[in-house]
Amino acid sequence: MFKVTFQVQGGNTVEAFANEGEKILQIAQRSNVAIDAPCSGNGSCGKCRVKLLSGELDSKQTRHITDEEYAEGWRLACCSTVVGDVTLEVPDIASAYRSRMKVADLSSGEEVQIFENSRKQVIDAGIEQKNNMEVLDVVMNVPSLEDTMPDNERLMRAVSRETGIAHVTIPYSVMVKLARVLRDSQFHVKCVVRKISSDVFIYDIFPSTEQVVIGGLAVDIGTTTVSAILVNMVTGEIIGKASSGNGQIRYGADVINRIIEASRPGGRKRLQDAVVKETINPLVAEMCKASGFKANHIYRMSVASNTTMNHLLMGVYADPIRMEPYIPTFYKTNSLFASDIGICIHPDAHIIVSPNIGSYVGGDITAGAFISMIWNRPETSLFIDLGTNGELVLGNSDFLISCACSAGPAFEGGDISCGMRATDGAIEACTIDFETMEPSFSIIGDPGTKPVGLCGSGLIDVIAELYINGIINSKGKFIRDGRRIKHDKYGMGSYVLAFEEDAGSVRDVEITEVDIDNFIRAKGAIFSAVRTMLNYLDYTVDMIDDVYVAGGIGSGINMRNAVNIGMLPDIPQDKFHYIGNSSLTGAYMELLSTSAEKKVYEVASNMTYLELSTVPTYMDEFVASCFLPHTDTRLFPSVTVKNE
Amino acid sequence: MFKVTFQVQGGNTVEAFANEGEKILQIAQRSNVAIDAPCSGNGSCGKCRVKLLSGELDSKQTRHITDEEYAEGWRLACCSTVVGDVTLEVPDIASAYRSRMKVADLSSGEEVQIFENSRKQVIDAGIEQKNNMEVLDVVMNVPSLEDTMPDNERLMRAVSRETGIAHVTIPYSVMVKLARVLRDSQFHVKCVVRKISSDVFIYDIFPSTEQVVIGGLAVDIGTTTVSAILVNMVTGEIIGKASSGNGQIRYGADVINRIIEASRPGGRKRLQDAVVKETINPLVAEMCKASGFKANHIYRMSVASNTTMNHLLMGVYADPIRMEPYIPTFYKTNSLFASDIGICIHPDAHIIVSPNIGSYVGGDITAGAFISMIWNRPETSLFIDLGTNGELVLGNSDFLISCACSAGPAFEGGDISCGMRATDGAIEACTIDFETMEPSFSIIGDPGTKPVGLCGSGLIDVIAELYINGIINSKGKFIRDGRRIKHDKYGMGSYVLAFEEDAGSVRDVEITEVDIDNFIRAKGAIFSAVRTMLNYLDYTVDMIDDVYVAGGIGSGINMRNAVNIGMLPDIPQDKFHYIGNSSLTGAYMELLSTSAEKKVYEVASNMTYLELSTVPTYMDEFVASCFLPHTDTRLFPSVTVKNE
Repeated sequence: MFKVTFQVQGGNTVEAFANEGEKILQIAQRSNVAIDAPCSGNGSCGKCRVKLLSGELDSKQTRHITDEEYAEGWRLACCSTVVGDVTLEVPDIASAYRSRMKVADLSSGEEVQIFENSRKQVIDAGIEQKNNMEVLDVVMNVPSLEDTMPDNERLMRAVSRETGIAHVTIPYSVMVKLARVLRDSQFHVKCVVRKISSDVFIYDIFPSTEQVVIGGLAVDIGTTTVSAILVNMVTGEIIGKASSGNGQIRYGADVINRIIEASRPGGRKRLQDAVVKETINPLVAEMCKASGFKANHIYRMSVASNTTMNHLLMGVYADPIRMEPYIPTFYKTNSLFASDIGICIHPDAHIIVSPNIGSYVGGDITAGAFISMIWNRPETSLFIDLGTNGELVLGNSDFLISCACSAGPAFEGGDISCGMRATDGAIEACTIDFETMEPSFSIIGDPGTKPVGLCGSGLIDVIAELYINGIINSKGKFIRDGRRIKHDKYGMGSYVLAFEEDAGSVRDVEITEVDIDNFIRAKGAIFSAVRTMLNYLDYTVDMIDDVYVAGGIGSGINMRNAVNIGMLPDIPQDKFHYIGNSSLTGAYMELLSTSAEKKVYEVASNMTYLELSTVPTYMDEFVASCFLPHTDTRLFPSVTVKNE
Repeated sequence: MFKVTFQVQGGNTVEAFANEGEKILQIAQRSNVAIDAPCSGNGSCGKCRVKLLSGELDSKQTRHITDEEYAEGWRLACCSTVVGDVTLEVPDIASAYRSRMKVADLSSGEEVQIFENSRKQVIDAGIEQKNNMEVLDVVMNVPSLEDTMPDNERLMRAVSRETGIAHVTIPYSVMVKLARVLRDSQFHVKCVVRKISSDVFIYDIFPSTEQVVIGGLAVDIGTTTVSAILVNMVTGEIIGKASSGNGQIRYGADVINRIIEASRPGGRKRLQDAVVKETINPLVAEMCKASGFKANHIYRMSVASNTTMNHLLMGVYADPIRMEPYIPTFYKTNSLFASDIGICIHPDAHIIVSPNIGSYVGGDITAGAFISMIWNRPETSLFIDLGTNGELVLGNSDFLISCACSAGPAFEGGDISCGMRATDGAIEACTIDFETMEPSFSIIGDPGTKPVGLCGSGLIDVIAELYINGIINSKGKFIRDGRRIKHDKYGMGSYVLAFEEDAGSVRDVEITEVDIDNFIRAKGAIFSAVRTMLNYLDYTVDMIDDVYVAGGIGSGINMRNAVNIGMLPDIPQDKFHYIGNSSLTGAYMELLSTSAEKKVYEVASNMTYLELSTVPTYMDEFVASCFLPHTDTRLFPSVTVKNE
């Protein structure tokens, strides 16, 4: 047995005991030390860096660690095993997770505009923004020796009278404070209630003098990023917004690795804690602190997330999702409460979950497809949600067909050596000069912010520009030379976007052939899914009238470049529409609108699910799509590469 | 600040810090050290003995401590204050609480007979022993790639098909194990469900191969004694039974002292913990252990207890109960669950509470009056529940009137120097020879058990015999002399039932004039309540057709003696009926029978509550009743005192 000491930067120190030969990443995971490991310990992403402070490790040097870094003590946790007592420094990824992101939580004016447009379209389609929660003003007679009715009955009768509904439910949480509140307020109170035809449920009670706002929480739980908004359930006003990385990421970047981790002993609890205690609860606390709102006054929560995230959130067995015949525990549920899973809002708050329709088409896509409004138009449109799972819906007011593909975390900066989420320092857009090969880019953050890495929209631009300017070929290999083109000792080429001295990081910000290859596979997954759906319906690309793109990839996505790299079908530019974080917008509408909630179920029920793994030609389509823009260039007639 | 160290006999050691002048009893209470204090620290009961091991206390010597005992270090915790560091030995009352009692939990054959009679009478009155819980056998199709319905929907549809009820609720606790159970059982399961017309609620799910018994818990929470039975919800069979003292007793013997304690900071939690964690949960654990039953398989609980106990159980503010206009938080509640208050049974178990009808007429009396069947007979009967609160109902199938009086804990052995609950060593019946004044008694326990003290039925006998044999006068003072009559240095007389050498305790088992006085006030409270009710209706004693006596006082109650002391009205002996622990029997019937539950509500709604404190003549009646048998001997024509 050896002792492994983790010193988390800016945080605590954790000691663990381990046997010789155990991997540092595994020791960290079981000791609850957060180490970023998007590739789940396969040695491919290079994110799980730790630094030796004392002792030794048996450690492979990989391409992710330079000789100089290796000499400084940097190692990959997934490639290092214990050979003796050791002390390691662990970069603080928790704070990186918590850092405010530009996209996906309505913090930019552009996003708010998109959000408002979506909301307006939904309302214009006749879906009222009205729910069954309200604040009732209730006046009762003050009891006397002649009128000795008990408190709860007095309240129930008054509420019944006020609402015209005979049955009133007073839960335990209200019972325990009833006597005090009634007497403090001379029996004139405000009640937060949910009214359905057969019952009034009293969530909370306050003296009538208090200002009472019914809070609601809409959450988009992405595999990589979690976004939340806090709203006023009556007016719809947004009170707070926040987003962060999904704390589960240390158990793997994709859903499969998380399901596998969840199936290990104690795994369901670990994964649930990572998303509830480490991610959602801190987001709620952050929003409440910023706005002065009490978390206990949030009485309803709406979640849009993929099937796996839904299952891990609830802590239910997720294994059947990934194993034939791919059966989730639930598509929808009507009996989940905040206290069941430990969300720190009002314990009786109902949690509504956007319905899954299959193991890989979840509530994020049903909520998103609802917001895209493609179900409300006669023309055939394509809706694409670009996330760790790419999810697609094709159809119109007559039919809807959906599918999902595993794009991996590349669109959110994962699996890319200089990839990052769309936060300060991320290059979000880029052009490259054909002659000089010098880049120009825009960076998220205050003016003067130095580049740190690339987020999804920046990646699309860089790869498209490299390809269009003939710097890389259709296989993603470098074919021009210049001061920005490097080759390492293994012969791997890379393009330097910012040299160390101009960068906000300690090394060059660059994109390597491995990164490009990872990204090409991600975009190939998306396009092959589009192709497979079209083929399935015997449709051609020109039968698509409009394309709605959603996802945390950023509002700055350059659709022209997305076509140039062969990610989106080659149709006219004005047919593309970016609709922002449609999952979050959908969760918001479902939270506030009983009709929207019903409509999402209706849209979901009418959606046919196409399981790509059962379509024999999908793999061929994928392989054909793993080129820039595609092996069949006839599919991308508008894409032309410049020649010297 | 001084250090007070409590060494609990056979238990742990607790250290507390206290200021000079603080009372030991209060320090013990806030340090969660259990010291029996039925009189709530008034110095009257003499039960809160502690023994000095080192250090000193500023301590009054009271009549409860002999000189010899004082020299040994015995002190009353309520009469001792801190003057320096001190170490005290504390008798282990917890184990005394837990000791199995003879009465009130159906552990004697006699009691079971009474219980069975009651049950039969209820059923004969057309109240079916049938509830809405059952075990459903559910077979589903095993999912396949062609049949990918999610688990919860598959189950809901199968349950709907099985029951003919469209709406099915699957709570979180079932959701989390659904996938595993379905797959472990090849989709053939047993479900524990509650069926109501509009919904099937699934409490639990098991593989079909398991034997599933739906457990139910009926509890009578008395102020002094708590009794519980564990039953099979389908057959009604009694699986387990147990009783113990109410752990709240250290906060006071009567409801008023407990309400006052509950209103102190943290008090509601302390009182709730004392009854839930220290009393009910151990009883459940004891019954489950003895019968091999899993507590988690108890899916429903029924409680019959007085209004204050109901409020303290739920942890709601109880202050308004004792303050004009005496308004409880609830008479009944339909939305209380085991997880709300921490009862260690299935978390979703519904707790049904027998309705209170006033601040001092609670669920124990509504459940008990239901079992007495007086509501079902044309003749006018009187129902009396002898407990810490005496509760009475007078009426017939046309009308019911109820009232409550504070008898104090004397019937359960409290406030009596040698009083004890009806457990091993208690004298439960007694006769005294007129000539020799020698007693003969029967003792609870195995043959040869030595007497330790007196339980309620024994007290009635002893006082009646002392009075009838002219040993005490109508004021309870000793008027004969003999070897069993003692007088202490204050002149207080006592009668020795067993001298130290023949007793199971370290001192004489005796009854003092103070004890007799306490008991006379208890019986006076009962009889004056009877008189006040009769007067209120303009009835005379002979208009009572039958008297039904219930309570933990023991099946051995000698009705003749109860009349002799003036506790019960002087009517023919064959008109008295002992109906056992009718609260517990009522809770049992309500647990098992939906019709019984409804009928109790109906009986409760039809009951008029007479608040004795608002009847101007009550106090006069009480004073007149504080004699043996009464100041007005014409009320007890059959009582004659023997003359030498």
